Amino acid sequence: MDQTLLPEKLQVNCYQEVEQLSEAIRSLRIRGAPALGVAGAMGVVLGVARHRRRDRRAFEAKLAEVCDYLAVSRPTAVNLGWALERMRARAASMSGCSAEQVCEGLLAEADSIRVEDERCCEAIGLAGQALVTQDGGVLTHCHTGALATCGAGTALAVLYEAHRRGRRFRVYADETRPLLQGARLTAWELMRAGLDVTLVCDSAAGSLMAAGQVDLVMTGADRIVSNGDTANKVGTYGLAVLARSHGIPFYVAAPTSSFDLTLAGGSDIPIEQRPADEVRGGFGRRTAPVEVRCHNAAFDVTPAELISGIVTDRGVVAPVGRESIGRIFSRSLLHGGN
Amino acid sequence: MDQTLLPEKLQVNCYQEVEQLSEAIRSLRIRGAPALGVAGAMGVVLGVARHRRRDRRAFEAKLAEVCDYLAVSRPTAVNLGWALERMRARAASMSGCSAEQVCEGLLAEADSIRVEDERCCEAIGLAGQALVTQDGGVLTHCHTGALATCGAGTALAVLYEAHRRGRRFRVYADETRPLLQGARLTAWELMRAGLDVTLVCDSAAGSLMAAGQVDLVMTGADRIVSNGDTANKVGTYGLAVLARSHGIPFYVAAPTSSFDLTLAGGSDIPIEQRPADEVRGGFGRRTAPVEVRCHNAAFDVTPAELISGIVTDRGVVAPVGRESIGRIFSRSLLHGGN
Repeated sequence: MDQTLLPEKLQVNCYQEVEQLSEAIRSLRIRGAPALGVAGAMGVVLGVARHRRRDRRAFEAKLAEVCDYLAVSRPTAVNLGWALERMRARAASMSGCSAEQVCEGLLAEADSIRVEDERCCEAIGLAGQALVTQDGGVLTHCHTGALATCGAGTALAVLYEAHRRGRRFRVYADETRPLLQGARLTAWELMRAGLDVTLVCDSAAGSLMAAGQVDLVMTGADRIVSNGDTANKVGTYGLAVLARSHGIPFYVAAPTSSFDLTLAGGSDIPIEQRPADEVRGGFGRRTAPVEVRCHNAAFDVTPAELISGIVTDRGVVAPVGRESIGRIFSRSLLHGGN
Repeated sequence: MDQTLLPEKLQVNCYQEVEQLSEAIRSLRIRGAPALGVAGAMGVVLGVARHRRRDRRAFEAKLAEVCDYLAVSRPTAVNLGWALERMRARAASMSGCSAEQVCEGLLAEADSIRVEDERCCEAIGLAGQALVTQDGGVLTHCHTGALATCGAGTALAVLYEAHRRGRRFRVYADETRPLLQGARLTAWELMRAGLDVTLVCDSAAGSLMAAGQVDLVMTGADRIVSNGDTANKVGTYGLAVLARSHGIPFYVAAPTSSFDLTLAGGSDIPIEQRPADEVRGGFGRRTAPVEVRCHNAAFDVTPAELISGIVTDRGVVAPVGRESIGRIFSRSLLHGGN
């Protein structure tokens, strides 16, 4: 579903070439950290499939090339790199198999990632739903719904689950400049699902909080590092500061695949800088001088101490820190998960 | 100068009817608190001029009608009401004069307001320039420049004066959703004046501050009440909270005509709610579901305790409070001002 055309047009694209898929990722036709993981894994299969009758060594070379090619499509969300790593590992585990067998294994792996993502969304929804209170107001940023995953979403999965249980609450959707994912996707998705949604400019969050309209802030995450620092859509950090200053709980919802335990702190996360024209006017009319310099970092980093908790497919991590995060990962190893 | 067409088109409109002028104010062709005051005063003259050969009583009735009509064009900026009050007072002071003489008096009064505004901008620039440090970064919100006044502006007058003195510094202009006054007007005006300006999405302010790029936040004001609480473009309050949390000084620049000493606190200020379509897509393309509910408060209120100081045409008020504000007004009375 081409996410750049919504809500004006609902168009489903079918990609047969890895180059088309990579373009779709770069141009945000496919976006959302979990969806990027699944798309990346499927992209590996697209990239290597026509080489499946070659010898294993040539196939492996192609596989490495395709993974490297896809890895650079978007630098901040960890799920893409995580999915590519799983694909590489699956191939590596199939020593003695033919290229054709490995190719089948890769398709099965990509499909597992898709199915796991769907289950992850369900688990996140169940883990977080109790945070949404009857008659409360929930503020969310960017888009973290079904379009961003293969299931019900991350932060929005929590809202869907609370709604399914008959709870009534108001959702304030930040429009999320510059690309308006909140206006185009979140508002659209929540309305279709029958939730009570109000669209607001990003800059209205402070006065909504001051007016007592917000009882919970919940966003997604593009990468959570080992101490709990979280990269997410630019503006998330400001919301976390505002929430703290108003005594409002600030939660992040993300699958365990969004954690990057190889990085120690938020300052290690690469932040994608996107083209200036997204700010200068990507919506049909030029809205700034053509030559004006723009700062267009797509993400910012929220330090762990501002995050009340992280809603994951393995439960809610709170308080957020190296230890509590370590615990959900070691637990899963004991039970053979991840 | 039609501010809705910039930066694509520079078009100067000449209004002959008060209805045209009122429409220009409502639709933001004319905007900015000080400019609204001058426009309102000139509008009174447009509205009554053709009645100047009638008897004084009929003329007075028309004057009252025109003032009431203009007063409701925009509810939050106090300058409009303040200017209309001055016009009423001028007429009231001319007992024994013919309608024609009063009409001339009103034109002179409107012209005084214009000239005073020009001098005010100069005085604000001089009072505030020392706050802008060499090699520093200044973040500003909305548009507070020449287009918003009859002189060099308010917050931007401060930057122009620092620039004129040879100081070098970076300006970050918040684009200011939904109407993008920062992108369309501030970026355009500062570039034309040769200042170093970078356009940013409103939601990027937090991460810019966290990265140490911002040494000063300076905005304008639409209404400052007697305890120092300040109504300004939505988003200003959030910037003040962020500035406080990063230890960055947060200043407001405004002429004394933006003070409303009749109100005790910020909660008394009427906040203009503007049409939902400004948020759903006013820039050539629909960017949200047509039917989605929107919250589009044009202003928010920053409490005095978050404001480091207010740069006025009578010097810098700091710390901000009922007493320090009272002082600049009593001082001016002693010297015969205002």
